[in-house]
Order: sequence, then C-alpha cells, then structure tokens
Amino acid sequence: MRIAFIGLGIMGSRMAANIQKSHPDLVVYNRSVSKAQELVRKGARLASSPAQAVEGAEVVFTMLSTPAAVREAALGSVEAGGKGARGEEGAQGFLPRMKPNALWVDCSTVNPAFSRQMAAAARERGLRFIDAPVAGSKLPAERGELLFLAGGEAHDLAAVRPILEQMGKKILHLGAAGSGTAMKMVVNLMLGQAMAAFSEAVAFAESLGLERSAVLDTLLGGATAAPFLQAKRSKIESGSYDTEFPLRWMLKDLDLAAQEAAASGAVLLAGSATREAFALALKAGLGDEDFSAIYRLYREGER
Amino acid sequence: MRIAFIGLGIMGSRMAANIQKSHPDLVVYNRSVSKAQELVRKGARLASSPAQAVEGAEVVFTMLSTPAAVREAALGSVEAGGKGARGEEGAQGFLPRMKPNALWVDCSTVNPAFSRQMAAAARERGLRFIDAPVAGSKLPAERGELLFLAGGEAHDLAAVRPILEQMGKKILHLGAAGSGTAMKMVVNLMLGQAMAAFSEAVAFAESLGLERSAVLDTLLGGATAAPFLQAKRSKIESGSYDTEFPLRWMLKDLDLAAQEAAASGAVLLAGSATREAFALALKAGLGDEDFSAIYRLYREGER
Amino acid sequence: MRIAFIGLGIMGSRMAANIQKSHPDLVVYNRSVSKAQELVRKGARLASSPAQAVEGAEVVFTMLSTPAAVREAALGSVEAGGKGARGEEGAQGFLPRMKPNALWVDCSTVNPAFSRQMAAAARERGLRFIDAPVAGSKLPAERGELLFLAGGEAHDLAAVRPILEQMGKKILHLGAAGSGTAMKMVVNLMLGQAMAAFSEAVAFAESLGLERSAVLDTLLGGATAAPFLQAKRSKIESGSYDTEFPLRWMLKDLDLAAQEAAASGAVLLAGSATREAFALALKAGLGDEDFSAIYRLYREGER
Amino acid sequence: MRIAFIGLGIMGSRMAANIQKSHPDLVVYNRSVSKAQELVRKGARLASSPAQAVEGAEVVFTMLSTPAAVREAALGSVEAGGKGARGEEGAQGFLPRMKPNALWVDCSTVNPAFSRQMAAAARERGLRFIDAPVAGSKLPAERGELLFLAGGEAHDLAAVRPILEQMGKKILHLGAAGSGTAMKMVVNLMLGQAMAAFSEAVAFAESLGLERSAVLDTLLGGATAAPFLQAKRSKIESGSYDTEFPLRWMLKDLDLAAQEAAASGAVLLAGSATREAFALALKAGLGDEDFSAIYRLYREGER
Repeated sequence: MRIAFIGLGIMGSRMAANIQKSHPDLVVYNRSVSKAQELVRKGARLASSPAQAVEGAEVVFTMLSTPAAVREAALGSVEAGGKGARGEEGAQGFLPRMKPNALWVDCSTVNPAFSRQMAAAARERGLRFIDAPVAGSKLPAERGELLFLAGGEAHDLAAVRPILEQMGKKILHLGAAGSGTAMKMVVNLMLGQAMAAFSEAVAFAESLGLERSAVLDTLLGGATAAPFLQAKRSKIESGSYDTEFPLRWMLKDLDLAAQEAAASGAVLLAGSATREAFALALKAGLGDEDFSAIYRLYREGER
Repeated sequence: MRIAFIGLGIMGSRMAANIQKSHPDLVVYNRSVSKAQELVRKGARLASSPAQAVEGAEVVFTMLSTPAAVREAALGSVEAGGKGARGEEGAQGFLPRMKPNALWVDCSTVNPAFSRQMAAAARERGLRFIDAPVAGSKLPAERGELLFLAGGEAHDLAAVRPILEQMGKKILHLGAAGSGTAMKMVVNLMLGQAMAAFSEAVAFAESLGLERSAVLDTLLGGATAAPFLQAKRSKIESGSYDTEFPLRWMLKDLDLAAQEAAASGAVLLAGSATREAFALALKAGLGDEDFSAIYRLYREGER
Repeated sequence: MRIAFIGLGIMGSRMAANIQKSHPDLVVYNRSVSKAQELVRKGARLASSPAQAVEGAEVVFTMLSTPAAVREAALGSVEAGGKGARGEEGAQGFLPRMKPNALWVDCSTVNPAFSRQMAAAARERGLRFIDAPVAGSKLPAERGELLFLAGGEAHDLAAVRPILEQMGKKILHLGAAGSGTAMKMVVNLMLGQAMAAFSEAVAFAESLGLERSAVLDTLLGGATAAPFLQAKRSKIESGSYDTEFPLRWMLKDLDLAAQEAAASGAVLLAGSATREAFALALKAGLGDEDFSAIYRLYREGER
Repeated sequence: MRIAFIGLGIMGSRMAANIQKSHPDLVVYNRSVSKAQELVRKGARLASSPAQAVEGAEVVFTMLSTPAAVREAALGSVEAGGKGARGEEGAQGFLPRMKPNALWVDCSTVNPAFSRQMAAAARERGLRFIDAPVAGSKLPAERGELLFLAGGEAHDLAAVRPILEQMGKKILHLGAAGSGTAMKMVVNLMLGQAMAAFSEAVAFAESLGLERSAVLDTLLGGATAAPFLQAKRSKIESGSYDTEFPLRWMLKDLDLAAQEAAASGAVLLAGSATREAFALALKAGLGDEDFSAIYRLYREGER
C-alpha cells in the first residue's frame, strides 16, 4: 500500500515514524524540510509539495495545525491560483491530484463543520475521507499509543485500521464524517477546562495560606482531579513549562468549540470562562509555553 | 474516652455508627430524634440539647450543614438568650458547657474564616479545636473510608486519630486551625467545577450529533475526566438523580469559596461561572437532587 | 439613479419605503412576496430573484439576516448550481449580474471578516462595495432616523450618501471595507451586555426584597443605565415582550463577536458570560421574543 | 441639633463640609487627624475617638470604607476590650455611648445583611438607625449633589432630611433598614458591569482595527453606553487614571454583591464575570487607580 504523510510537526513526525516501521518508503511532505530528515534517512521519499506527495498514494494522512492549513494543503491557496474570493482550488492543492477512490485520513484537530466540508469536497472528486484526530501528546505519539477518534464510513476505517494501529493503541469509531473531529473538540474542551479549574483551585488554596505541595498531594491523590494532571505537577512546581501542547493551540481549540456551540446552540458556561482565561494568558505572553502555564495567570502579580 | 456526636444527617449518622463500634455508649444529639433511633438501639445515649450532649465528654464531634448551624449549636442562638445583635452565646450553646481542656472536632463543611473564629472561641474558654471536614459521600461514610482534611495542633490531632481512623481511611494534617476547612473548600470547588464542565461537555457533544453513550465511553475512558465522574454515569443515563450530595449544598460550598476568594483576592474565573450554573439549576428546581443533576441545566429545553 | 433593494424584513421594508420617496420605481426583491406589496402599490417593481433585481442598477442594497443569507443572495447556493463544496457562485447569485462599476451597499449585520470577503468578491468583478449596517430598530427605520456605520472607500460612500440620508439621520465612516460591520458588531455587543447586566441587576435587587418599580426608578434615573433601557421598562413591567429585536438575533450577534474575538485574540469576559445568558434564554424558549426577555431568565423559576 | 460625623475620607470630608454650612460646630472624627483640619478651622470640634464624638449628639453620621470599619467604630474591636470571639462591644465603640433615642445614619457602602445587623444593634439599645449610602463621587459630594438611597423608618428619614438635602440633591426612600444599602449595592454592580463591558468593547473594537477615537465617538454618542462613561473618556485616552473611585473599592462592592447573592440565590452571570475582571486587575497592580483602569486589563500585553 502506498502511503503519503503531510505535516511533520511534533505529532506528525512521530506518527509517520511509526507508519514507517511497516512502510519504509512512505512519501512525506513538510513545509520546513528539516523535520523530514530522519524519516528520509530511513527510506522515506520527500515530496516538494502536497500535490506531489499524493501522486499514486492509496492513503493520504494529514496532520496540520489549523483548518486554514488543511484547506490550503488540500485545495490550494488563492494566491497560488485560486479564482474566487474564498480560496477555491489553487494549483498546489493535493485533492485534485489524488488517485481515484484513494482515502484521505485527516488527523488534524479542526472543527466538525470543516471536516464535513472536506468530506464533501473529497466525495465530489470520487475520493474517500475519514477524520481521525488523536488524543495524546508527544510521548504517546512516539510510543504508538495514541487514541484515534474517527468519523466516516465503517469500511473506510476498516481499510486503514492496521496502519492506525501502528500509531495508536485504541481506535474509536464515533459516526459519520465529522464525528471524530467533534469528539476531539469535546475532549480538548475537557482538557482545557480541567487544566484551568485545577490551576485556579491550587492558586486559590495557596491564597488561603495552604502549602502548595500539600494541596497537590491532596488533589492529585483524590477523585476530583483528572488523571492527566498528575503529569503537569512537575511543571507547576518547577515553574518551567516545557511545551507538550502549546497554550496557543489550546486557545485555538476552545475558539473552535465556541464556533461550533454557536451553530448548535450549546451552552458553555465554564467553557467560555475557560476560553477567556486562556485568552488572558496569551495576552500575558504565555502562548508558546505548555498550556499548563495557565497556572501563572492565577499566581503571578501581587495585591 | 467519653465521646459526644452532634448532627446525625446522611453523613453524621454513618460516622457515629462507626465510632460506636469501639464506643457503644457515645452520646448523640440531632434536632430530629428519629435519626438517632438505630444508634440508641445499639447503646448510644440520646441528649436533648447540644449543651446536654457535651457534659463530661473528652471529645465532641459536630457534623452540621452550615456555618450558621454550627454557630448556633456551639454558641446558642440570639432567640434563646443571646444578648447582642450578632448571635452571641445563648443558653443552649454547647461550648460553655464543655469540660475544661476537652477537644471539639468540627467535621462540618464551613469556610476557613469561620473555623478560625470557632478555634478562637474554643481557646478563649480553655478548650481545644480541630477542623476535620471529610471528603467522600454516603457509601465511604458507611464503610469508614472517608478522607479527613484536618487543621489544628498536631498533638490534638494525634489524640483523636484512632477515632478518626474508625471513620476514615486517610487523615491528612494540612496546618493550623482552618486549614482542613480551607482544603475541603478547595476540594469541593474542584468537585463542582468538574461536574459542571463534564455535564457541559457531554451536552455539547450531543448537540453536535454524537451518541451519548459513545461520548461517555470516550470521556470516562480517557485521562481528562475526574475519576469520581464514573459513578455519576448511571444517573446521567437514567435521568434519575438519587441524592448523594444535594445540588443545594454544592451551591452553598461554591458560595463559601467566593466569600473566601473575596478575602484573599483570588481569581475564580471558571469557579464563578460554575457557581452561576448551579444557581441557575437551583432556580430550575433541582436543589434537592444530586448535584450531578446540573447536567439537566445543559440538556433540558429546546431551541 | 437606478436602485435595487434586496431583503424586505422588519427593517428592510421600512428602509426601502424611505428610498422610495425619491426613487418611486426602485426594484425590490424578497423571498416572501407579501412583504413587497405596499412598495409595489407605490410604484416599485418586483423582481423574481436577486439576480434579476440588480439588472441595470447603479446601487444595490441588501438587508438580510445572516452572513449565509447574504452569501447565497450574492453568490448563489450550492443547490442552485454551485460547483464546489463551499457554495461558490450559483445560478441565482446577483453579483455576476451587476452592471460594471455598480455599487453594492450591504446593510446586513454580519461579521467583518465576511464583509471583507464580499468586498474582495465585488472588487474581483469590477464592482464597488460598502458595508453599512445600521443602529436603530423598527421605529427609527420607519422615521428615517437610523445611524449608518459605514466601511469602504470615501468616494463610494459620498456617492450614496444622499440615499442613506433618506433612511438615516447620521452616517459615520469608520474606515476600510469591514469597518462598518466591525463597529456594528461592537455596538450590538454593548447592547446585549447592557440588557443582560440590567436584567440581572433588577432581578438581584428584587431578590433582596426591593420593590421593582423603585429599582427601575432609581436605575433608569441614574447615570449607570444605558439610555435605550428606558424603552424596555414597559416590557419588563408588563411581562409582554413585543419583539423589536428578537433574542435569537442578539445571540447570533454575540456569536459573531466571539468568532471575531477568536481571530483577533480579544478578551471578552463579560461578553462571553452574556452570550451564555442569551444561549440559556434561547434554550428556555425565548428566542422569538424581544431580547429584553432575557430578564425572564433571571426571574423565572423558584428556589 | 447636635451632629457628629465619623469618617472624613474623599467623600466624608466633603459631606461634612456641606453639613457645616448650617451646623458649623459639628463634632468630627477621623482616624488620621490631618483630614479634619479644614473643618476644625471652620469651627468643627475634633473628637479623639468615635465614642467621644457621639456624646450628646442627636444625629450621628458614619462614612467608612468597609463593614469591618463600621463595626469597629460602632461596637469596638476585640483588641480594645471585646470579650468574645467575634468582636463584640469594645471600649471604643460609639453605639453604647449614644444619647437615648438618637439617630445613627450610616452612609457607608456595606451589604444589606450588615445594615440590618447594625439596625438591630441600635434598636436593642433604644437608638434609631437609617442606612443612607450615596451615589455620586468626589465632585457631586463637594457640590452637595449626591443621591441618597435610604432605608429605615419614614419618620426617621423625615427628621434628618433637611441635613441630607445639604449634601444631596435627591433622597430616595427604598424601604426598611437595609434597603438603601441594598439599592446602593445594585447601583454599584451596574457601575462595575458598565465600566468593564465598555472597556471590553472598546478594546475589542481596537483589536479589529478600528480607531479608538471613532469607537469612543460612536459608542458615547449612542444609546448603548451609560451616561457616566462620558466622564471616563479622558482617562482612557490619556492613560492617566486619576482616582475618583478606586478600583479596589469596586472589587469590594462586587464581592459584597456576590455575598448577598449567595444568601438570596440570585444569578449573577455577567456580575461574577465582572468581579473576576476586577480581581485580575487588582492582581495586575491597578487597585489604587480609578476603577476605569479596568480598560488596561483588556489592552495591555501583546499576543
């Protein structure tokens, strides 16, 4: 099976490396070439554009940072030859270059309305589409222990499952195209809310005169803290927020959630307060730190 | 050791029953007598007032619902003979009737400023005080598996530790008087935030067209949901919110947190949004249901 | 000057009627024909599609309810012959049918990014574009006393100013294309925030035992209440919320604001809380009432 | 009529000066003596304690900063001779030293529950009580143009009305003791919400690329901005927040509102978000600037 992988960031490079174990000659593309070196050293072929990458591929993976980035890779940019006001097909879009009936698996974290648009754009061209964003960060990506949240046709998911299993330990099928993206958005909403609420609670406890270490012991040892928070403890205690998931991206995900809630009429009381907390943290210059640096919003400054 | 236990509600009755295993003749008091029957049947002596209950006791436990209820039990009510505007000592307050050097252990969930007031009131009368609120609800109370969050002098805590161990599986000493209460307030803030955020996320996912059971599987199987939420799943799925911890009390605890944040200058972005969610739920008539009924705030109604 | 007017709702029908005073034979279009009858009786010509309406017109006004509605009128719908996934030009879009160098004035309340897209789509076809949403509701629309918030080229605005002055008493030029829309969005954000904050304050005062009429006297007689609130008093007192500006549309505008804040990184602490209040009110079935019915969210129900 | 005035801050000194026009020899007290000099120069008598100030007075005014300050002045401090845990009557409290049937008028901004406590404490000692907080800041205080929001018995208010009219242009009777305080709290909630919402809207508009002066023109010239905001324009434009009403006090008032909402079960969605905005501003070091400096919370920092 011929495979293309577009987007070799923190996550994508590790995911591609796991695919490479069974498909050493997969084709890869990344805007910055340096990220591809290790993969190429092991036999991957480097494409010079998304459009070139997908030539002849049966399966195309994308792992990009925003809906706009995915759209540009798939449909091309206005500047590059689009003909309308809204970024219709440009010269470098990969979608028109895909082999008939090939399968596009978008692992990017986007919003469900966007995934459904991409699914329609694929279908229109006789292509198949699955949205399969992942839960898990750098380390699980490296170890092939991601969780895939997939939307699309069951038989398309079945076809690609063996490859997904090289990257993840669990693959959930949530429904039609867009469902994987929807679930991912909800998972990240939970993630952001839990991180902000925990930071707030710890800083509040400190303002009441409690020792931070006792507070962390109590909360992390109890049933009210989400399990992932354990891994953030050392960041909070050291004050060094090595980036696993940038705060800036968390804000982006919360903004996507707000956008979908606008469409579905959902109420996001704590969710929107959490969005504001991250927006304030971004203003405070914490955008490129790990999203757990939201703790600093609550702690810094003095009365 | 002679022990008195004041307040036999859902929690208090179960805690007293565990003390009774080693101290069958403890003295108990509750406003409504019926709650005491089972304990009395097993040898407990029933007092007719808090003041009577503490006569001769070396250790006095209180497990009451609000700061006002604790104040009235300890210092009496204005109506009952107070002489000032603010509810100073009335005839039935138990504090003036305690044996010199006796130890008062208040397990009620109150606010730290109040605990420090009670500690001072005790000290003034030559008495000792520990605040030891508990984490855990009905079932852990019954099984003697509560978590005690204690504030006060270490030697006082040591003196009463064997009794606490009959009721709980873990006893944490957080610092001076008021520290246990402070920690408890923070734990309950976490509890309320996690419950509201989870409810919000589930309802949001449903508004996006996802199946609730798949959403619950995904979230509860992942690292972003607090462990206690697993136990709320059946309530959300059945729509039947058997009360373990009333929504009304959760709101009270969030209001106490706001009051302390006012004093310490803490920022509670998600915390105050959560408070408003529970206040809306109370208005909607959900006050006496389990606090997980907050889910209904997000689900009920239609567009 | 030949004029076309597309969209004859509560606002549009009154605005067109004021244009008709100097241009009796303007061409009008509305999805539902009945709204056009009065104008036609006075000499207006009725078009059967947006595309037909603009034939030969030097100036085209649009007054529609959402970005999607504007897009469909201007660029056509997918169903009607679009060729891509995102609703590109369909058969009935009016933009390709406009006379070269003609001027499109969009008075709809949309978001600035959308206005800039429409400006680009017009420019690409050799057309001119102004966004000129209005502040003011039914009565000012009828009396020709609206406030126009305009974005675009100064000379284009100058060209159409005499017609705008038939509909409004003040025309502000805020900057390039999209600026009028941006300002309108901010004005409506203020409107929503003021309405919700006032409702909250009045209901809060009542919960403290104050008489509502005394509260309204005090607040409306002071310097802390926005002037427009005076006109909402009778609705609050009568409990009858005759619709001037539907609550549903206010929520839409707050959602547009959130979407733009996502792009610009703005912090909307009170703004997002206000959005949630209106979302809750929509869930409670108040969507078609005047947006001042948000007061009911705070008052209804009982403890 | 013999009058005492306790508390000569920004407001109190100006109010006392207006009383002095008809009662040159009023007795004054302030913790810091320097504030009293001008009044003494004009004939006022300086007392060395609150208790001394009220001797022989028929009417006693208090204008202090917090409930705790009022309580200490009226009932004395624990340190000064209190005998209980909660600050009961100390040696210097003025309440026990007031002449029988004398009238205490508390103009401080406190919470209604506190006013009702003070009313009860007065009644118990055969004294009369009115809560009469004021709306208006430095300049109206100087010009005798304050608005009094009064609670208490109508005949007590009638007795003191001529003096109030020297300080204010309008005196509203809102109901029983505590009602004036309740109304004041609601007015200040409105004030804080309007200031934060306006700041947020202006900063949001700027983030969208609009010119600040055009935004201020539009909003302040329209019907959606509270009239008092006009007077804040120059602060926002100059970046110099000369203090008329310190941000720190606004936060205190919002915290009092939250405390009362806890008791009455009121929902404060925008109100609590506003409280968090001011708490963040305090953390950012803006506590002693005018409360309009909340604008800086939204503007400072960069992305």
